Amino acid sequence: MRQLPHPATEAIQLTEVLRALADPVRLEIAVRLAAQTEQNCSSVLEELGVHKSTASHHYRTLREAGVLLTRQDGRQKYMRLRREDLDARFPGLLDTILRAARTDVTTAPYTLPPAHGSV
Amino acid sequence: MRQLPHPATEAIQLTEVLRALADPVRLEIAVRLAAQTEQNCSSVLEELGVHKSTASHHYRTLREAGVLLTRQDGRQKYMRLRREDLDARFPGLLDTILRAARTDVTTAPYTLPPAHGSV
Repeated sequence: MRQLPHPATEAIQLTEVLRALADPVRLEIAVRLAAQTEQNCSSVLEELGVHKSTASHHYRTLREAGVLLTRQDGRQKYMRLRREDLDARFPGLLDTILRAARTDVTTAPYTLPPAHGSV
Repeated sequence: MRQLPHPATEAIQLTEVLRALADPVRLEIAVRLAAQTEQNCSSVLEELGVHKSTASHHYRTLREAGVLLTRQDGRQKYMRLRREDLDARFPGLLDTILRAARTDVTTAPYTLPPAHGSV
């Protein structure tokens, strides 16, 4: 099983977390992961309707910022939110952002544009 | 008095707010503004030790995202956080981010690098 690099909890930086979530697609990925323990990367990709390379870029940005953990099992990749790590580092931050995302009428119900710029 | 464009409260977007605060200098500006009602843009600029054009870019990013209000009075510009507007739009978000910024040992006490990349 190939290990992908993830920052240690104490190395997670606030500006990196904010930057990772400051994109409609990545914010949507976080919102979807919040509803489940673990999710298959391919199924999220299909649901979002984004190109594989775009999705890979977004997953990597979220992973490198410390927002999610990616686990590779054979040819499948699974991911989950680093809830406990983020809560330990920045209490309440993730939940507050996810709650804001759900109430943001300008993004909910997440009608994503065909092309997604990244920050 | 020249009026600078600011988004209406209901037009403030979560991803724009997160993007605006996902930069160490802009986050620091928000932290400093949180401690005061209103601050002179020039004095913040001096305190941060950033170039005027860099500071102007950061102020504009924060203003256009709806994080701060800029008021011009003669040759002086003053700014303040849009606390109430942000709280109305995304309850608790600003305070949670500012609290996280204060506890983030990787950024506090905000020793800024000489060159600041923007996202």
